[in-house]
Amino acid sequence: MKRIGVFTSGGDSPGMNACIRAVVRASIYHGIEVYGIHRGYKGMVKGEIYKMDSHSASNIIQKGGTILRSARSKEFMTPEGRKQAYEQLQQHGIEGLVAIGGDGTFTGANIFYEEYGIPTVGAPGTIDNDLYGTDFTIGYDTAVNTALDAIDKIRDTADSHDRVFFIEVMGRDSGYIAIPCAIGGGAEIVMIPETETSIEYVVDTLRTGWNRSKTSFIVIVAEGDDAGNANEIAAKVQHELPHMDARVTILGHVQRGGSPTAADRMLASQMGVACVEGLLQGRKCEMAGIINRELVYTPFIDTITKDKLINPQFLKLVDILSV
Amino acid sequence: MKRIGVFTSGGDSPGMNACIRAVVRASIYHGIEVYGIHRGYKGMVKGEIYKMDSHSASNIIQKGGTILRSARSKEFMTPEGRKQAYEQLQQHGIEGLVAIGGDGTFTGANIFYEEYGIPTVGAPGTIDNDLYGTDFTIGYDTAVNTALDAIDKIRDTADSHDRVFFIEVMGRDSGYIAIPCAIGGGAEIVMIPETETSIEYVVDTLRTGWNRSKTSFIVIVAEGDDAGNANEIAAKVQHELPHMDARVTILGHVQRGGSPTAADRMLASQMGVACVEGLLQGRKCEMAGIINRELVYTPFIDTITKDKLINPQFLKLVDILSV
Amino acid sequence: MKRIGVFTSGGDSPGMNACIRAVVRASIYHGIEVYGIHRGYKGMVKGEIYKMDSHSASNIIQKGGTILRSARSKEFMTPEGRKQAYEQLQQHGIEGLVAIGGDGTFTGANIFYEEYGIPTVGAPGTIDNDLYGTDFTIGYDTAVNTALDAIDKIRDTADSHDRVFFIEVMGRDSGYIAIPCAIGGGAEIVMIPETETSIEYVVDTLRTGWNRSKTSFIVIVAEGDDAGNANEIAAKVQHELPHMDARVTILGHVQRGGSPTAADRMLASQMGVACVEGLLQGRKCEMAGIINRELVYTPFIDTITKDKLINPQFLKLVDILSV
Amino acid sequence: MKRIGVFTSGGDSPGMNACIRAVVRASIYHGIEVYGIHRGYKGMVKGEIYKMDSHSASNIIQKGGTILRSARSKEFMTPEGRKQAYEQLQQHGIEGLVAIGGDGTFTGANIFYEEYGIPTVGAPGTIDNDLYGTDFTIGYDTAVNTALDAIDKIRDTADSHDRVFFIEVMGRDSGYIAIPCAIGGGAEIVMIPETETSIEYVVDTLRTGWNRSKTSFIVIVAEGDDAGNANEIAAKVQHELPHMDARVTILGHVQRGGSPTAADRMLASQMGVACVEGLLQGRKCEMAGIINRELVYTPFIDTITKDKLINPQFLKLVDILSV
Repeated sequence: MKRIGVFTSGGDSPGMNACIRAVVRASIYHGIEVYGIHRGYKGMVKGEIYKMDSHSASNIIQKGGTILRSARSKEFMTPEGRKQAYEQLQQHGIEGLVAIGGDGTFTGANIFYEEYGIPTVGAPGTIDNDLYGTDFTIGYDTAVNTALDAIDKIRDTADSHDRVFFIEVMGRDSGYIAIPCAIGGGAEIVMIPETETSIEYVVDTLRTGWNRSKTSFIVIVAEGDDAGNANEIAAKVQHELPHMDARVTILGHVQRGGSPTAADRMLASQMGVACVEGLLQGRKCEMAGIINRELVYTPFIDTITKDKLINPQFLKLVDILSV
Repeated sequence: MKRIGVFTSGGDSPGMNACIRAVVRASIYHGIEVYGIHRGYKGMVKGEIYKMDSHSASNIIQKGGTILRSARSKEFMTPEGRKQAYEQLQQHGIEGLVAIGGDGTFTGANIFYEEYGIPTVGAPGTIDNDLYGTDFTIGYDTAVNTALDAIDKIRDTADSHDRVFFIEVMGRDSGYIAIPCAIGGGAEIVMIPETETSIEYVVDTLRTGWNRSKTSFIVIVAEGDDAGNANEIAAKVQHELPHMDARVTILGHVQRGGSPTAADRMLASQMGVACVEGLLQGRKCEMAGIINRELVYTPFIDTITKDKLINPQFLKLVDILSV
Repeated sequence: MKRIGVFTSGGDSPGMNACIRAVVRASIYHGIEVYGIHRGYKGMVKGEIYKMDSHSASNIIQKGGTILRSARSKEFMTPEGRKQAYEQLQQHGIEGLVAIGGDGTFTGANIFYEEYGIPTVGAPGTIDNDLYGTDFTIGYDTAVNTALDAIDKIRDTADSHDRVFFIEVMGRDSGYIAIPCAIGGGAEIVMIPETETSIEYVVDTLRTGWNRSKTSFIVIVAEGDDAGNANEIAAKVQHELPHMDARVTILGHVQRGGSPTAADRMLASQMGVACVEGLLQGRKCEMAGIINRELVYTPFIDTITKDKLINPQFLKLVDILSV
Repeated sequence: MKRIGVFTSGGDSPGMNACIRAVVRASIYHGIEVYGIHRGYKGMVKGEIYKMDSHSASNIIQKGGTILRSARSKEFMTPEGRKQAYEQLQQHGIEGLVAIGGDGTFTGANIFYEEYGIPTVGAPGTIDNDLYGTDFTIGYDTAVNTALDAIDKIRDTADSHDRVFFIEVMGRDSGYIAIPCAIGGGAEIVMIPETETSIEYVVDTLRTGWNRSKTSFIVIVAEGDDAGNANEIAAKVQHELPHMDARVTILGHVQRGGSPTAADRMLASQMGVACVEGLLQGRKCEMAGIINRELVYTPFIDTITKDKLINPQFLKLVDILSV
C-alpha cells in the first residue's frame, strides 16, 4: 500500500482533528502518501480529494470539529454513487481508507469493500460512546466534560433559587453521557433509555427530598429517554408538584464542539496511528479501539450489530450518592 | 449607623458572592456590624437573618450564584409583609440595607424607605446590563463570556457540517448580551429587541452568503426579539431556504452561573465597598455604579424609569465584520 | 462497624472532595456514622475530629483542594504520636478509617494497624498516578488537563514568535503527567525520569527541525528528569543552538488545583463508596482501585513497594506524531 | 488610499487575530485592498507580504497568538533596513499601514513616517495595559483572566495545606495585571512597581494574620516590583517567618496565550475597524483607543512619552478586602 485516504463522517466529535493529524503523521512515518477526503462519502463521490503533508496537520490537535468536514451522502447509498466514489479513488491512486466516524460510516465501508475491494480501517469518532469494540470513543470524554461544566453552572443558579432543573444531555440510544453527568454533577436522578424510569419515581424522590427540606434538585435526562424529552418530563412533574419551581435546559450542540480533553487527544492519536498500521498489516473492515488499555481491532460487522452495555454499578452509584 | 443588613434579590448573577464579601469586609473595616438576610425580601419578612463575620465571606469570591440565596416574595408586596419585614429588622437592630439586585429589587426598597425610613443602597446585580446608572452590571461580563464560550463550541460543529445555527441568548428587553456575542462570536446576523430585524433580511443575508459559497452561518437571537424566539425564527427561515440545514440552540440558564470573570469580581468588589460607604455617608435609595470608570450613585427612581441605550455603533460593527 | 473516620493526607489533588462526599454518602447509605479528621494524621493526633452528615458533603463535588485539609505530621511518625492518635479515635468511637492519599499515607496506616488494630482502607489520591494497584489515581486526569490547557496557551505564543519552549510539568519520579502532555500538546520531545534523554538528542532533534524550516518547538520536561530541571536543560540547549530563542515555563502548583474533571469525579465517587464498603467487608490495609474498569483492592504493602510502569508505546507515539 | 498593509509587532497578545480580522473585513467593506505583513518589521524588510481576503480572516477571531507572527527586527532600526522596508512596500503598492503592537512598534512607525511619508495608524496590542491613549489594551482582559484562573487553582492547594503563596504575574513596569489579580484572587497583599512595598510590611501583615489564626495567604507580585522577584521576596519572608510554609509560582508565558475574552474580542474588533477608517480619514502616526467608551485617536508620540497611572483607589480596595 502506497497511498491512502482519510475522511470523517457522521456527527462531528472533538478529537477528530487530533485523529486526522495522527493519520497524516503515521503515514509519513511509515513512508506512504495520504490524501484528505472532504465531507465524507459525499466528497468521495464528488472527488473532493487533496494531498496532505505534515504541515496540513499542524496546529490542529487542539481544535474541535473536523478540518475535513463531515456530511451525509445520499449518493453513496446508491450503487451509482459508490461506483463514482470508486472511480475517484482509482483516479487518485488511493488503495486504502481510514474512516473516522460511527456505525453508519462503517456500514458504508463494509458494502464498499464487498463491491470494490477497497479496505477501510475505522476509528471510533462519536461523542455517544455506544459503539461496540472500544471502551471509549473519540469525543466522548470531551462531551461529558462540556456537559458537566454547564451542569456546574446551572447548579449555581439552582441552589440560589431553590429550583428543580431538568437538564437534557445527548444520548439518543444510550445513557453513556447522562451517567457521568449525573454522578459528577451531583444529580439526584438520572433518566436513561436503557432503564425505565417512571414519572412516579421522579415525583416521589423529589417530594421526599423536599420534605427533608432539600430545596434544589438536578435531574439529568438523556435525550432518548422513554419517559419523553426533558420538557415533557418537567411538565408532568411540575403538574404533580406545583409548589416546586421546575426549569428545563437542553444542552444541545455545545456538547459536540470544543477543544478535546487530554484523554480524547491521547485516544485519537493512538487510533490514528492504529488505523494506518492496521491498513499496512492488511486489515480490512475493522475498527481500531482500546479495550482495557490494549489496542484491539474489531470487525465492522460487530461494531454495528453488537451492543455495548452500561455498567449497572453506575446506576446504583447515583442512588448511593444522592442520599 | 452601627449595624446593616445585606441581601441578594431577583435573578442571581455571577459576582453576587464577590459583592457580598466586599460588603462584609468593608463593614468590618469601617467598624460596623453586618447581617446576612437569606432569600431576599422573603427572608426579610420571615426573619432569616444571620450575623456575618470576616470568615463567612472567605473563599466565596470565585463562586457563582449567591450564598445568601434569592427568591421572589409576594408577602413583601403587601403592606403587612413589609410591616413584618420592618419588625424583623428592628428586632435585629438593623439600621440600613445593602440590596444586590435589579430594578424590581430597588422598587421594593424605595417603597420600604417611604414607609419605614430604612435606607437602602443598591448594587447592580443582574446579567442583563440594561440598568440605568452604571456602565456595567455585576454578572454581565461573565454571562457574555459563558455564552461566547458556548458559541465557539457550536461554531466548531457548524463549520464541520455546513449548517446555519440560530443561537438564543438571554435578554428579554435588550440586546446587551446578544451584541458582544455576535461580534465576538463571528456571527453573521444579530437580532435584538431594540431594532426591528425582518425575516426577509435574514433570508436575504443567508442566501447571499450561500451564493458566495459560504456554507455555515451563525445568527444570534436575543430571547426578547420581536421576530419571535429562536425556534420560530429558524422555522420561518428554513421554510424559505429548504436547502440549508438550520439548527437551534437555546443557551438558557448556563448563562447565569459560573465563576465570575476578573471584571465582574472587580466591579462587585468596588460596588460592595461603595454600598457600605454610601450608607455611612447617609445615602438612601441610591444605586452605586461605575460610569466612565468613576464611582457614581444614582437615585433608585432613575434606575427604574430611565433607559440605558445600546451603542448603535455596535450594530454597524456586526455588519462590517460579517462582510 | 458503626463509626468510621475519613481524612486526606499528603499533597492535595482535585477530586479529594468528591471522594470525601462519596465516603459520607456511602456511610449514611449503609447506616454507619462518619467523622471527618482534619489535616490528616496531624489532626488525628490532635483530635481535630468532627461529625459529618449528608449536608457537610453538599456542593463540594466540583471543588478543588480538600475541605478536610492536609498536612505532614512528624508526631505520627513517633510511637507517642500514634498512641495519642489511637486515644483520640477511641474517644470518638471510631473503629475504621478511610485514608485518601498516596504511598506515604498508606505506610503510616500499615504501621498504625499493626500497633493498634485499627483497619484502614485507602483511596488513591495523588495527581502523580505512579501508584501500583489502580490504572488511574484521583486528580491525575485533572492535573493533565490543567497542564495541557497551559501548554495550549504557550503554543499560541511559541508559534507567534518562533520560539523553543521548555515546559516543566509535575512528576518527581515518573513521566505519567509528562507523556499525555507531550502527546496531547503536540510536543516534539518529552523528557521523563523513566528513560534517559541526552541533551545531544534534544539538540539534534531541534536542529533537524530547524533545518526543515520548523521554527517553533515544545519540549515537555518532567520535573524529576535525570538531565536536570527545565532551566538547566534549556540553558544547555541554548548554548548549543544560540540562534534559537529558548524559553522556560514551570507550571508548578496550578497543576494541583482546579475543579475535577468528569473522570476524576467518577473515579473519586467510586473509590469513596468502595472504601466504605471495603471496611464493612472487613478489609484492612488495602487500597481500592480500578484496573481495567473493575474494582480491585490491593494490599497497602504492594502499593508501596511495587512499580507501575509507563506504557512504552506512548514514547513511540511521541516520535511518530512529531514527524 | 487603495491598498494597506497590516502587521503585528512586539510581544503577542490574545485578540491580535480578532484585530487582524477586523482590519481585513473593514478594508473589504470600504473597498480597499489589504496585505498581511508577516513577522512585523522583520518581514516588512524582507518582503514577507501576502494579499489577504475575507477568507484569510475566517475562523481566527477566537484564536490566541497572531497568524501574522511577530518578531524583533534589528534591521529596521537601521536606515538601510527602513529603506529596504520602504522599497518592499512600494513594490506591493502599499500606501498605509496598520500596526498592532505597543510603544516600541509605534516608535518605529513614527521614524518611518518621517523618513518615507508612509502613514501608520496603530492598535494597542499588549497584555500590559500600560499604554497611554486607551483605557484598555488588546489582550489585557484575557491575560488577567488567565492569571486569575491560575490563582484560583493555587488557592485550592494553599487552603488545603496552610501555605503562603507568592505568585508572580506579568508587569515589568506596572501593576495593571497584578491589581485585579489581587482583588479578584482574594489576595492579602499586592506588590507593584508603582509603589514601594517593604518586606517588613509583608512580614508584619502575614504575622498578624497568622496570630489571628489565618493559615493560608496569597501575595501577588508584579514581575517588575522593586523589592525583587517572587523568589527573592519569598526567601526573605520565609527567613523572617520560618514556621510558615512559603511557596512560589511564576505564571509566565501562559498569560500571553489563550482564546481572547469577549471584552478583548470587542475591543480588538473596534480597534481594527478604527485603524482602517483612521487611515482613510488621512490620519498618520496615531493610535486608536477607547477612553470612557468613546473612540479616540492619540498621537504615537503621546502614547510613547506619557504615563498611564493606576487608580490609587484599587490599592485601598486590596486593604479593605483583606480585612
